[in-house]
Amino acid sequence: MSLTAREVETLIREGVPMANDIDLRVELIADKRALARIPFNDRMLRPGGSLSGPVQMALSDATMYAAVLGTLGAVEMAVTSNLSINFLRRPAAVDLYADARVLKMGARLAYCEVRLTSAVDGVYDEHSELVAHVTGTYALPGPLSPPPVGGNADAHR
Amino acid sequence: MSLTAREVETLIREGVPMANDIDLRVELIADKRALARIPFNDRMLRPGGSLSGPVQMALSDATMYAAVLGTLGAVEMAVTSNLSINFLRRPAAVDLYADARVLKMGARLAYCEVRLTSAVDGVYDEHSELVAHVTGTYALPGPLSPPPVGGNADAHR
Amino acid sequence: MSLTAREVETLIREGVPMANDIDLRVELIADKRALARIPFNDRMLRPGGSLSGPVQMALSDATMYAAVLGTLGAVEMAVTSNLSINFLRRPAAVDLYADARVLKMGARLAYCEVRLTSAVDGVYDEHSELVAHVTGTYALPGPLSPPPVGGNADAHR
Amino acid sequence: MSLTAREVETLIREGVPMANDIDLRVELIADKRALARIPFNDRMLRPGGSLSGPVQMALSDATMYAAVLGTLGAVEMAVTSNLSINFLRRPAAVDLYADARVLKMGARLAYCEVRLTSAVDGVYDEHSELVAHVTGTYALPGPLSPPPVGGNADAHR
Repeated sequence: MSLTAREVETLIREGVPMANDIDLRVELIADKRALARIPFNDRMLRPGGSLSGPVQMALSDATMYAAVLGTLGAVEMAVTSNLSINFLRRPAAVDLYADARVLKMGARLAYCEVRLTSAVDGVYDEHSELVAHVTGTYALPGPLSPPPVGGNADAHR
Repeated sequence: MSLTAREVETLIREGVPMANDIDLRVELIADKRALARIPFNDRMLRPGGSLSGPVQMALSDATMYAAVLGTLGAVEMAVTSNLSINFLRRPAAVDLYADARVLKMGARLAYCEVRLTSAVDGVYDEHSELVAHVTGTYALPGPLSPPPVGGNADAHR
Repeated sequence: MSLTAREVETLIREGVPMANDIDLRVELIADKRALARIPFNDRMLRPGGSLSGPVQMALSDATMYAAVLGTLGAVEMAVTSNLSINFLRRPAAVDLYADARVLKMGARLAYCEVRLTSAVDGVYDEHSELVAHVTGTYALPGPLSPPPVGGNADAHR
Repeated sequence: MSLTAREVETLIREGVPMANDIDLRVELIADKRALARIPFNDRMLRPGGSLSGPVQMALSDATMYAAVLGTLGAVEMAVTSNLSINFLRRPAAVDLYADARVLKMGARLAYCEVRLTSAVDGVYDEHSELVAHVTGTYALPGPLSPPPVGGNADAHR
């Protein structure tokens, strides 16, 4: 039931087209954790010279989802319920990393934290200064709660 | 100094490439308010049948920015400081609207709220059920605070 | 099953001692809405001359809870899952109002918004400038999900 | 200019009456960090048997403020701009700890994270399960930005 980083990446790219747009790479899946990366790409630049905010949000959302998938296995019905991002400094013109942790895995909700940092000398350095800090909640499919008739879920995915 | 909806749309599309990806349309600029729309597009679909969360976040961020630009005129240095989104229900397979209001225009921060709703019979209906609810803060360029030496801004844009 | 403003106030004061500390008054209960007030009290002053942030947070939480109770009837198990507050301007040295709306009543979550404003000429004026803006989520007891063995709830109440 | 834990506790208790109500104890001040505690007290109980949400919010806000004071020295004008709390599990009927870190100290904003945990065998254990997770932003007094005429600050303190 447990998934590899490659399998998680494939699931996310199949499910969320924007993950392809930002060229999401899932680097590591561990217990209640996922590390992902977007390779630096001139197309993401804006005149100010940084990876844009929406790219950072898409990366954060995908990496939280990766951490949930890595912990629970393939849970197709998991949907983001909330995402809150604080932009702290301009990312460097290099790869951008997202390190997501599941801080609480409940029966109905997974609560996650994501730390975004720029690559240092081409690799991940968990002590480098934060580009952004993110928290988010995923609603998990309840084993006893079938989706309502008509298939209209409570949230967006 | 005040900008039309078309001018705001052009500024945002020039500044944030993802605004082009989601085909952002700025429909209305008024005092402390902006209404924007993304035309429904099969490419945004995911298997579950909805506009994805990252698309909704990109739309929300761009519409807040439009409301700030519409209120202050062209403020190139305004940067998103925080964005918090709550996904409330699956969007319908139609155009998605974002209605952004500036709830507080301070000297250094603009605080905004955005309501996302699906089009009803092809048009905007402000009383339809919310797809998502967003709050966010923009940091405004302080007239007396020059950027720190080195040009490293406090936030992401 | 529906409750009056007085009944809701009593339920909250019995359940949350801090509601007594801030002298919470529930003024109105309507469909998916509650209006509450804290009478101005010198004890809440801090040197800067305003009602403190924690008082504003306590008021917001209680008023959201009032809106949920007013909508669902007495739901003892409802617990706050998230509360996010943005402080926008210093409250005046007068009564402080909180106007809470349930923006989405789902099967498992109630999502609310609260607007805090100072009294104007001694009464509520929904168009006065915001003191603070709050969003929050309440987890509702699921009819099919018994609490886990050991009685350890997912959240704080 | 640097302050001891006792000095920070005194400053906060003088400035925010609710810090006295919850019997706030500042245990440690370090670079960009503060650890505080509220002794368990039957008065904070509600029928459900836990420290209430408003008490947790007051503790979180005060501990963020302690971390800012510990980093910058006595900054009377610092005001909370945003606080977002996620309640993760019911606190035990023991002392409650808050561990606050300043994740970004900018020129105008301090961005903080706070982790709340129950005491384990009467002491702090940073690896115990989270009771709540909090993020928040403090607005710092700008050296070049005098308060607007009329003394109406941008935020609540």
